[in-house]
Amino acid sequence: MSCRRIRDYGIKIGSFPVGDRNSIGDIPGVAVGHCTIDTASHKTGVTVILPRKENIFSGKLIAASDVLNGFGKTAGTIQINELGTLESPIALTNTLNVGLVHDALVGYMADRCREEGIPLFSFNPVVGECNDCHLNDIKERAVDASHVLSAIHSASADFEQGDVGAGKGTICYGLKGGIGSASRKMEIGGKTYHIGVLVQSNFGKMEDLTIQGMEMGRTIRKWQDEEKKACPKADDEGSIMSIIATDLPLSSRQIRRILKRAAIGLGRTGSHVGHGSGDVMIGFSTANIISSTSDESFSSLQILNESLMDIPFRAVIEAEEEAVLNSLAAADSVTGYTGETCHALDPYLKRFLTLYRTEK
Amino acid sequence: MSCRRIRDYGIKIGSFPVGDRNSIGDIPGVAVGHCTIDTASHKTGVTVILPRKENIFSGKLIAASDVLNGFGKTAGTIQINELGTLESPIALTNTLNVGLVHDALVGYMADRCREEGIPLFSFNPVVGECNDCHLNDIKERAVDASHVLSAIHSASADFEQGDVGAGKGTICYGLKGGIGSASRKMEIGGKTYHIGVLVQSNFGKMEDLTIQGMEMGRTIRKWQDEEKKACPKADDEGSIMSIIATDLPLSSRQIRRILKRAAIGLGRTGSHVGHGSGDVMIGFSTANIISSTSDESFSSLQILNESLMDIPFRAVIEAEEEAVLNSLAAADSVTGYTGETCHALDPYLKRFLTLYRTEK
Amino acid sequence: MSCRRIRDYGIKIGSFPVGDRNSIGDIPGVAVGHCTIDTASHKTGVTVILPRKENIFSGKLIAASDVLNGFGKTAGTIQINELGTLESPIALTNTLNVGLVHDALVGYMADRCREEGIPLFSFNPVVGECNDCHLNDIKERAVDASHVLSAIHSASADFEQGDVGAGKGTICYGLKGGIGSASRKMEIGGKTYHIGVLVQSNFGKMEDLTIQGMEMGRTIRKWQDEEKKACPKADDEGSIMSIIATDLPLSSRQIRRILKRAAIGLGRTGSHVGHGSGDVMIGFSTANIISSTSDESFSSLQILNESLMDIPFRAVIEAEEEAVLNSLAAADSVTGYTGETCHALDPYLKRFLTLYRTEK
Amino acid sequence: MSCRRIRDYGIKIGSFPVGDRNSIGDIPGVAVGHCTIDTASHKTGVTVILPRKENIFSGKLIAASDVLNGFGKTAGTIQINELGTLESPIALTNTLNVGLVHDALVGYMADRCREEGIPLFSFNPVVGECNDCHLNDIKERAVDASHVLSAIHSASADFEQGDVGAGKGTICYGLKGGIGSASRKMEIGGKTYHIGVLVQSNFGKMEDLTIQGMEMGRTIRKWQDEEKKACPKADDEGSIMSIIATDLPLSSRQIRRILKRAAIGLGRTGSHVGHGSGDVMIGFSTANIISSTSDESFSSLQILNESLMDIPFRAVIEAEEEAVLNSLAAADSVTGYTGETCHALDPYLKRFLTLYRTEK
Repeated sequence: MSCRRIRDYGIKIGSFPVGDRNSIGDIPGVAVGHCTIDTASHKTGVTVILPRKENIFSGKLIAASDVLNGFGKTAGTIQINELGTLESPIALTNTLNVGLVHDALVGYMADRCREEGIPLFSFNPVVGECNDCHLNDIKERAVDASHVLSAIHSASADFEQGDVGAGKGTICYGLKGGIGSASRKMEIGGKTYHIGVLVQSNFGKMEDLTIQGMEMGRTIRKWQDEEKKACPKADDEGSIMSIIATDLPLSSRQIRRILKRAAIGLGRTGSHVGHGSGDVMIGFSTANIISSTSDESFSSLQILNESLMDIPFRAVIEAEEEAVLNSLAAADSVTGYTGETCHALDPYLKRFLTLYRTEK
Repeated sequence: MSCRRIRDYGIKIGSFPVGDRNSIGDIPGVAVGHCTIDTASHKTGVTVILPRKENIFSGKLIAASDVLNGFGKTAGTIQINELGTLESPIALTNTLNVGLVHDALVGYMADRCREEGIPLFSFNPVVGECNDCHLNDIKERAVDASHVLSAIHSASADFEQGDVGAGKGTICYGLKGGIGSASRKMEIGGKTYHIGVLVQSNFGKMEDLTIQGMEMGRTIRKWQDEEKKACPKADDEGSIMSIIATDLPLSSRQIRRILKRAAIGLGRTGSHVGHGSGDVMIGFSTANIISSTSDESFSSLQILNESLMDIPFRAVIEAEEEAVLNSLAAADSVTGYTGETCHALDPYLKRFLTLYRTEK
Repeated sequence: MSCRRIRDYGIKIGSFPVGDRNSIGDIPGVAVGHCTIDTASHKTGVTVILPRKENIFSGKLIAASDVLNGFGKTAGTIQINELGTLESPIALTNTLNVGLVHDALVGYMADRCREEGIPLFSFNPVVGECNDCHLNDIKERAVDASHVLSAIHSASADFEQGDVGAGKGTICYGLKGGIGSASRKMEIGGKTYHIGVLVQSNFGKMEDLTIQGMEMGRTIRKWQDEEKKACPKADDEGSIMSIIATDLPLSSRQIRRILKRAAIGLGRTGSHVGHGSGDVMIGFSTANIISSTSDESFSSLQILNESLMDIPFRAVIEAEEEAVLNSLAAADSVTGYTGETCHALDPYLKRFLTLYRTEK
Repeated sequence: MSCRRIRDYGIKIGSFPVGDRNSIGDIPGVAVGHCTIDTASHKTGVTVILPRKENIFSGKLIAASDVLNGFGKTAGTIQINELGTLESPIALTNTLNVGLVHDALVGYMADRCREEGIPLFSFNPVVGECNDCHLNDIKERAVDASHVLSAIHSASADFEQGDVGAGKGTICYGLKGGIGSASRKMEIGGKTYHIGVLVQSNFGKMEDLTIQGMEMGRTIRKWQDEEKKACPKADDEGSIMSIIATDLPLSSRQIRRILKRAAIGLGRTGSHVGHGSGDVMIGFSTANIISSTSDESFSSLQILNESLMDIPFRAVIEAEEEAVLNSLAAADSVTGYTGETCHALDPYLKRFLTLYRTEK
C-alpha cells in the first residue's frame, strides 16, 4: 500500500467537507486494524473495524445491513436486521476464511467479556468477505485466529489503505484494489457530525472504470493491451463490502435508508453491480448506546428528524465513491501466486489526467 | 351483528387481563366507525380505524406493516415501511372498492387539513380489503365516498362487531365472519399499557375451525350437511386484515416484530394461511407523535427495552386469536345476493360446547 | 412534448444497440397510451403501459417490483411480490389521483372480462404516481375514469414522450421532465431480446444534473439565475416511477435483480435518491404466460441461465439512464397553475454542449 | 435418544398420509447424519442434512430461506435469497461453533470437488444453530471439523432423533428437545410427492406446551414443582431451526411461501416465537437440478401450478408441528455440565394422556 489518495491527483468528489482523516477513523471511537498475509502463495489477510473502544457486546450500537447483491457469504446480518443492533467488531477477509474468522471473533469476545466480568453465552460475529482467488491461493484458507487478533490489536483511527489486510489480494476494475476509506462532515443543528465509509473493493471490469465522470477504463484497457499487460481477472466477478459509520443519531431504519444510497456512489465509479458479486453494506451509528444489561423498561433514543435525511444521503454517496477510488489510488501492484501481476492505477491515472483533463 | 362475544360462551383465550372494552377501542384515542351497505344485492361496507383524535397527517404515529400472505390489494404499505409512520386513518372495504375508498380518504384529509390550515399536497391513504363476493355483488362496487365519510363520522371507542361495515359480507371458516376485536393489558414499569387487534375476517375452511384447541370445524361441517345447509364459499379463499394498535412506546422495527406474531394467533384458530388470501397486518403505536412540521434537528423517541418484547408478543397472539373468534361470535347469519345464506357460528358453538366441553 | 430525444444532441449512453423505437414499445406486445389534461389549472394526466395485447388477467405475466425509496403511494406491489405475476395494465398518474385511477382500472378490466366471458371477482390494479403539485393544482384530483380509458384506447407501440400524460406536470432536476423511454437489444443464444424502460421523472435538484458524466446542473442553475428564471420546485422532492419490460425469459426473482440495477442508471444522471421521493420499479417479462385457468398441475418455465444475468443488468442501466434523459429532452416548457414556468432542457443543453463538449 | 415418536402415544397430527419413514429422509436423495459430543462438560454436536447424494456444488438445488425471528446466527442465507439456490450441505450446531462448522464445510466441499475434478473457488456453506448453553459448556466450542466430517459420513435416509447431534444439549418447552423430523405425502397430478421437516428444537416455556390442542404445559410444570424438579432453562430463550425438503417442483418464491407456513405448525405446539429466539427456516426442492457449469443460455424449470399451493402449505404445517413433537418424544433426559437435568417428555405425556385424554 501507499500514502496515495485520489485527492492527491486533484480529483475531488462531491461538495461536502471531508473529515480530518478523510476516513472512517473520523467517527470518534472507530478504529481499523489490518493483518496482511503476504507470502509467495498467499495475498490475503484480515481487516477489522472496531465500532467503539468500549466493549460493544455490553454496549451495543444501532445498526442495519442492506444487500445490494447477495452472491456473497457475509455472516451476521440476520440478527442485525432483527434487533437493529451491532454487538461485534466487523471483520473482513477472503471468501473461504469466513468460518475461521467468525470463530476467532467469538474467541476474542469471550476472552474480553471474561476479563471484564460480563457473561457471554451468545454472540453474533459479523464477517464480510471478498474473493481474492486470482492473486491468493484461496483454497488453503491462510487466515487463522492469530491474524484476527493481530488486526484487532493494531487497530487505530489512523490506518493504511490499498493492498493491505483483507484488501491484499482483491482486484477492482482490473486494477489493484483493496481497502479504501473516505469521510464527510455534516453540519446539523449547529453541530458537526461525520459519516465515513470503508470498502473492501473487489469488483468491476476495467472497461467500466469511471472517475469523476471520466470514462477512463477503456483507455486504460487499450494501454494495457499495448503494454501486453493483462489483468488476472477479466470478468466482473467479485464483490464489494461497504462498512458505513456515523456519529449522527439514527434509528436502524434510517441507517438502512442511508445504506441504500451507497449504491449510487458505487455506480458513479462505473459499477453495474455484477451478478457474481457480493455487495453488502453494513452501517452503524455511535450516537446511542444500547446496554445489554439495562433493567429500565424504556429507553430514550435520539434520532434525526426524517426531513433532514437528504444530508446523510448525499454525504454517504460522496464518501462511498471516494472510498472506492481511494482503494485504487492507495494500492500498489501485486503479483499473485500464479505469477500474474495486477497493476496499480497510479501510472494510468497520471497519464490519463495529463492527456485528457480539461478545466471546468 | 349482535352483542355476542366469544367470552359469553365461557371461552377465555390466554392469560393476560383484557382491556375495559376488550377491543381496539381500549387504546386511548383510537376510534372505529362503520358504514354498512345492506341491500338485496349488496352486503358490504366500510370500517374505518381512526388512530388518534387529532389530525394524524400533521401528527403522525410510528407504524409498521407485515405481509403474511400477499394475495391482496392493500394500499399504503410502501410508505409505512419506508418512513415508519402512519399519516392516515385506516379504511377497510371490499376488494374492488379499494380505489374509491382510497380517493375518499384523500378527500377527507384534504378537507380536514384545509379547515385546520395545514398544507397538504401529498398524502398516503391506507386501505385494506377482503373479498366479499360470495354474499355481495362485488363487481358493482357499491361503496362510495359518502360511505367512507359516514364511517369516519360515526367512529367511537365503542363500536359494533360482526356482520357490520367492511365485515357485512365476509365469510370465515364457512360461517359468517366480519369485524372482530379484542385487547389485552400489559403491566410494564409500573404502568398499564394496552394492545388491541381489529380484524376483518374472511378466510378459512370450515373443517379447520379450532376454538381453544377444540377442533370443532369438522363436526359443524357434518351438522350442516345433515341440515342440508351449505356455505356459499367452500374453499379457503379470502383474506384477513389485522389492525393492531398499542399505547406502548415502540419503534417501527419493534411494531413489525409484534405483527409477525399475530400469525400465531391466527393459526390457533385453525388457519393454514391459504394461498388465495391477502393476510396483511398493519400496526401503530400512539405513544410517540411525529410532527410533520417540526423544525428540530433531532427528536427523542421513547421505546421499549428490547428484552421486554415477549410481553407484547404474547399479548398480541391472544388478542389476535380472540379478535378472530369475536368476529365469528358477533356475526348473525346473512343471506347474500344469490339467495344463499352464510350461517352464524352461534347455534353450532352452543351445541358443540354442550356436547363436548370438558372441565379442565 | 416534442420529437427530441437525447441522442439528437449526439449523446449516446452505453454500448448496447438500441431497439428500433428506442423505447419500451420495442418489446413485442407492449403498448403505451397517454391522456393529457392541459388546462389553466391542471397539468396532469394518465399514462398506461399495456404489457400485452391479450387479456392480461387471464394470461398473466411474470413480474416483480422493487422499492428504491418508499415515500410514495404506488398500489399493487404486494400481490406482485407474493405471486410473481402481473395481471393488470400499469397506470401512472399524479399522487392524489391514485384512487380514482385504481378504480378505473377495475372498471376497465371488469368490462373487458365480461365481454370475453372471463369470470373476474378479484383483480390487482397497478398504479404508480408522481407528485406534480408545482405545476398542477393537484388537490382538485382532475383525473377520472374517462382519462384512464382514453389512455388505454390510444395505446400503441409508438407513443409520445416528454410533457405528456402522467408526465404533463412533473419536474426533473428543476427542468421540465415527464415521460421518457429507451430500450436495448441483447443477443443471447443466437436470438435477439429486448429490454425497455419507461419513466415518469419528477425528481432531482438542478445542481445535480449530470449527462454522460458532464456535471452540467450547476452551470444551468447559474444561467437560469442570470436570466432571472426560477424553477417552481427547488428542492429535491418528487419521485420517479420506472417500468421495465423485456421479452427475455426470466423468473420473478431474476426480474427483481434487474430492477435493483436501474438505480445505477438513475444515479448516473445525478440523483441521490432523495428522502422525499417515491422511487418504485416495476418489471415484467412477456416470455412466459401464466394462465389463470390452467388445470395442469405443473407448468414449465423458461428462464435465463443465471450466469448470463450481467447482460440484462448492463442493458437496463443504460436504458434507465437514457429514459430519464429522454424525459428531459422530449419535454417542452410548461407554465403551471400558479403562473410559474418550468423550462425545457433543450436550450441549456445546446448551449452547454457548444461551450464545453470535448471530443473523446 | 430413543425410538419413541409422538405417534407412539396415539397422537396423530393432521390429515395427510405420512411418508414411509415419517421423516425428511422420505425425500429421495436426502440423508441426515449426526455426530454427538457427550462428555461431562459437553452436550452438543453436529447434525448435517445432505440434500442430494451427488455433488450439490456442481448440481445445485432450488432453495429459499425465511427468518421468523432473527435473534440467531445462521450463515449462508444471503446467497440463497439472491440466487434461489443451495450449493452446500446444511449443518446444524451450537451457537458459538458456527464458525468452525462453516470452515469444516468449506474443507469438505473443497476436498470433494478436487476429487471430482470440479473447480471450486467460492462456496456458500449453510450453518444453522441453537444455543445449548444450559446443558453444554458452550464457551469451550467443543465442535471441530472432525465432528462435521463424521456427521457427513454417517448420513443416511434413516437417522436417529431426539438428544442426538446438534440436538444433544437443546431444551424445548423446558423439557429435553433436540432433533425431530416428520413428513407428509401429497398426491398431485397422479403422482406422489413428499415434504419433510427436520427441526433442532430449543425454544419455548414449559407452561406453553400444547399437544394436539391439549394445553398440558401448565400441568407438567405443576408436576415438576411437586417433584422438586426444575428445568435448567425457565425462560423462553433459544431458537428453532427448521429444514424443509420436498421433491415437489417449486420455484424459490414458492418455497419461501411454504416456509412462512411452518410458523403456523410451530405455533400449534404453543410457541409465541419469543424475542430471544433465532427461528430460521431453510427449504429446498430436489426436483430441479441447476448445473453450475451449463453453457445453455436458458433452462426449463418445472414448477407447481400456483393454485395448488394450498397442498404443500397444509402438509408443511402438519409436518412442522409433528417434527417439533417428535424432537420431544424421542429425547431422553440429559444431565448437563452444571449437574442439572433436563427431563424427557415421556413420563409426563403418558401421565397426562392417562388422566385427561378424552375420545373425540
